[in-house]
Amino acid sequence: MSTAGQNDPRFTDVGRLVVRCPDRPGIVAVLSGFLAEVGANITDSQQHSSDPSGGTFTLRLEFVLADLAGRRAGLEQRLAALAGEWGMVWRLTEASRRPTLAVFVSRTDHVLQELIYRVRSGDLPAEITCIVSNHRDLEPVARGAGIPFHHVPVTPETKAEAEAAALELVGGVDLVVLARYMQIVSADFCSRFPERLINIHHSFLPAFVGANPYQAAHDRGVKLIGATAHYVTPELDAGPIIEQEVVRIDHRATVEDMRRMGRYVERQVLAQAVTWHVEDRIIVEGPRTIVFA
Amino acid sequence: MSTAGQNDPRFTDVGRLVVRCPDRPGIVAVLSGFLAEVGANITDSQQHSSDPSGGTFTLRLEFVLADLAGRRAGLEQRLAALAGEWGMVWRLTEASRRPTLAVFVSRTDHVLQELIYRVRSGDLPAEITCIVSNHRDLEPVARGAGIPFHHVPVTPETKAEAEAAALELVGGVDLVVLARYMQIVSADFCSRFPERLINIHHSFLPAFVGANPYQAAHDRGVKLIGATAHYVTPELDAGPIIEQEVVRIDHRATVEDMRRMGRYVERQVLAQAVTWHVEDRIIVEGPRTIVFA
Amino acid sequence: MSTAGQNDPRFTDVGRLVVRCPDRPGIVAVLSGFLAEVGANITDSQQHSSDPSGGTFTLRLEFVLADLAGRRAGLEQRLAALAGEWGMVWRLTEASRRPTLAVFVSRTDHVLQELIYRVRSGDLPAEITCIVSNHRDLEPVARGAGIPFHHVPVTPETKAEAEAAALELVGGVDLVVLARYMQIVSADFCSRFPERLINIHHSFLPAFVGANPYQAAHDRGVKLIGATAHYVTPELDAGPIIEQEVVRIDHRATVEDMRRMGRYVERQVLAQAVTWHVEDRIIVEGPRTIVFA
Amino acid sequence: MSTAGQNDPRFTDVGRLVVRCPDRPGIVAVLSGFLAEVGANITDSQQHSSDPSGGTFTLRLEFVLADLAGRRAGLEQRLAALAGEWGMVWRLTEASRRPTLAVFVSRTDHVLQELIYRVRSGDLPAEITCIVSNHRDLEPVARGAGIPFHHVPVTPETKAEAEAAALELVGGVDLVVLARYMQIVSADFCSRFPERLINIHHSFLPAFVGANPYQAAHDRGVKLIGATAHYVTPELDAGPIIEQEVVRIDHRATVEDMRRMGRYVERQVLAQAVTWHVEDRIIVEGPRTIVFA
Repeated sequence: MSTAGQNDPRFTDVGRLVVRCPDRPGIVAVLSGFLAEVGANITDSQQHSSDPSGGTFTLRLEFVLADLAGRRAGLEQRLAALAGEWGMVWRLTEASRRPTLAVFVSRTDHVLQELIYRVRSGDLPAEITCIVSNHRDLEPVARGAGIPFHHVPVTPETKAEAEAAALELVGGVDLVVLARYMQIVSADFCSRFPERLINIHHSFLPAFVGANPYQAAHDRGVKLIGATAHYVTPELDAGPIIEQEVVRIDHRATVEDMRRMGRYVERQVLAQAVTWHVEDRIIVEGPRTIVFA
Repeated sequence: MSTAGQNDPRFTDVGRLVVRCPDRPGIVAVLSGFLAEVGANITDSQQHSSDPSGGTFTLRLEFVLADLAGRRAGLEQRLAALAGEWGMVWRLTEASRRPTLAVFVSRTDHVLQELIYRVRSGDLPAEITCIVSNHRDLEPVARGAGIPFHHVPVTPETKAEAEAAALELVGGVDLVVLARYMQIVSADFCSRFPERLINIHHSFLPAFVGANPYQAAHDRGVKLIGATAHYVTPELDAGPIIEQEVVRIDHRATVEDMRRMGRYVERQVLAQAVTWHVEDRIIVEGPRTIVFA
Repeated sequence: MSTAGQNDPRFTDVGRLVVRCPDRPGIVAVLSGFLAEVGANITDSQQHSSDPSGGTFTLRLEFVLADLAGRRAGLEQRLAALAGEWGMVWRLTEASRRPTLAVFVSRTDHVLQELIYRVRSGDLPAEITCIVSNHRDLEPVARGAGIPFHHVPVTPETKAEAEAAALELVGGVDLVVLARYMQIVSADFCSRFPERLINIHHSFLPAFVGANPYQAAHDRGVKLIGATAHYVTPELDAGPIIEQEVVRIDHRATVEDMRRMGRYVERQVLAQAVTWHVEDRIIVEGPRTIVFA
Repeated sequence: MSTAGQNDPRFTDVGRLVVRCPDRPGIVAVLSGFLAEVGANITDSQQHSSDPSGGTFTLRLEFVLADLAGRRAGLEQRLAALAGEWGMVWRLTEASRRPTLAVFVSRTDHVLQELIYRVRSGDLPAEITCIVSNHRDLEPVARGAGIPFHHVPVTPETKAEAEAAALELVGGVDLVVLARYMQIVSADFCSRFPERLINIHHSFLPAFVGANPYQAAHDRGVKLIGATAHYVTPELDAGPIIEQEVVRIDHRATVEDMRRMGRYVERQVLAQAVTWHVEDRIIVEGPRTIVFA
């Protein structure tokens, strides 16, 4: 975990508890009882049962608790005890701590600009700590936003070293975002960021996996084009989907038109996915995601 | 409450508990503790706090409990005790009991046909027990669906008697649906069905209140037309909104085109609103609705 | 061409001319000059150039011409002459003549019901002359609508004979609609209805080709499910796409929920595609369609 | 007309002809004949008849003509002759000439940022020649984009002088864009920019005219919030609508949430409207717009 991330005063004393465990009667009573006992006021609660008989239960609670930061260690101790009893996997986060992001880009800036805008406007409660690119084109954008920019060229021969250099540069960042990075990252790189590496693919997956999806969409004659944000796994474009959206086109749309129109879908979809991630709203469940939007 | 409504075996032993009370820490723990204690398994839970400090807390729980029907009286006794303690308003329903609907129509059949289709397909877990109309046009539709049809003509002079006759005919129905009824019902009629009288208005309210909204939309030159389902209150088209949807039009659309396109939005919006109502997903909160969709 | 199809008085004297030819300057002037000369008033005109230099030009004109039926032979003679000169492929239709449809179904009725509703309401200016099914389930629906129903069972062994029997039954119908028919039709059957055979596939093609797309969509964890109407070609689910639409789902949606929600998308998409077809709004251009909506 | 606006090489020799006249048979033949005769190749054509008998005919043609700039005077002479004969109002523009925009803002930057992004990316073929604001907050944004910024404070007492100063500053600009300017401009100011003054209103007009529409939307309990781009006329929020869009909200949305979510709709709607305007795709027809999108 990174120690970076500035405090956001809007969220002081706001905590989030995300829990997964085998579904058994009583689990909600136990967790809500625990929070009531410590004096927390639950302000939002969402839950999901994969299958009421013998499935997995997932719960996300948002609560306010005076002096959350000071009392955190004590809460975690008690949660650890409950976890043993109920077979729980859990995480407790403080909303005031903004996660850190490393954004990987190539030559197009539309997704990066959107992330920068949303961070600056406060809609994306995170901090972009560095921008990494295999090209220098977007260095001025990074500089304009006051974000460190690292140029890490990649060739088929230097891919391993390039990834090693990038890993060094991003350090203990909370989330890596591939914002139209246009490079396939290695299985090893993926393994460094389990459920912490998000990509935007410029098609409605699983249609048009791989390179040049707008050309493929044009060749197939689809009437809607889309974008998909997903966690990256070693298999190309096959990781758990977080968010998708489409836009209508008609027969007049050239491949170039699709690229242009697609940019607005891509930026929206990726920004939404990253926001849900940093707000602890996503739980990966095998090949799928649970999103408590 | 009506005693009609056939049992739906899909939903045997499925219960729903909807609760409203002042927001106090511990309320979730108490209610989930209660359900755990009686052996119910919570399969869905949604909640809303209008304002975490001093606001109103609303909760909808769906659960499975063996022999729900047999144990209902006991559950209600204990809920009544909790209600006194926590200032709760609550309702407990059995999903297997399908609510009864009276549908009021005039001359156009698109919304009625949709309700009939959804009931028959099982998507709308309810029973249409009668159709009331001020015209005879849709009598064949009612007959084809095997639903009693009542012709109750209305003129400005006979409005009071007509409403009295209609009230007699619908009896203790659970919900009255105005499916393009084209008559303004009286404040007295509204008062007989508090939060149990749903209308579809063929505009995106509050735009184009009153008669002939498509003409008004055409005159104003809007680029989207819409429909709104709402609970009916004495003030025209001003009751709590349940659902709205829009569809895009362009400059070629005549008023007649809008009517034609609008039909598909109207039927979708009203059917959705009625489904949420009969599934106990809607809570009226002053001028607004909470919809646990 | 069928000689069935009743006249629709709304469309008396309304003609449609659809033309394709190599793109050359002057083509619009020639065609609009021709229509002006014969006294037709052009009420709608849409055109598309696949590529302004050396591509294909497509034009759809809608016009009003007094005594269109009587003058049709003369118009066709002159169009034939122009066609030779400009390399035009063309078709001239009278809007008042409602095309005939044969609808193939299996056991689910939602798409069929929608087609029946739209024909009856006048929104789909066509006539359903027969319903063919490999099961008897929907015979009552056909009977209720007063449409001949033909039960043509299909097994792997009897497929060829079944298709031959179906061909005999549908005769010279203008369009064959596979309304969730659930059988793969043979290449030979396809060849009998070039660009006159429309299928609804219950996924957003090219994602989830083949059987059970909702299960596949669930397994992949998509966030939108869709439907695709397309002309049928021998390659499975690969014909030119006419229309697509999607609906948002979340992690709670089971495969059964997707099937239920998908029904409303399927019926909308297929009905739209069929309407565009019978209004002469679709031109197939290789693997794509031009839709003058 | 401004003489500013740099040439865009993508659009060299691309012309646009927009024509309005009484609807008479033969008008299309005459105009397409004229363009064919001068050697222009029509690449896009859209038309609309308000009413085929006795209504108004509107046509937008896009064409390629070698040495358009050099031949423009000759074309205009011939069009003027045709205009007399057919009662045509017309405009001929060169796509390579990018229109100039003056953008008026107040304190929020989301719409301005979007316009700057789209101009820079080439999606909005225009040039922002100045930014005018009654506050200094967005001066850094203007400076970062290299656009002159003018601070023109407005108080109820100084409104007339402020508008006079603003008029002086914007000079002969092609289009004035009120990008969340938050000031009501005078009838006199409107009259200086007939059909050249576009505003974004943060509601789905005609619902929620005037100040604080998100608060009003919250109070009414709507389920969709929207934004409307329109030409400004002296009557508040009543000018011809160019574009509208909505986004779904639920009962959890506070007024602040609506403001945040609405920003993304507002920027999209205004940018779309401005793009259509500068591409000569909008024709005002009384209280409505024709948009050849």
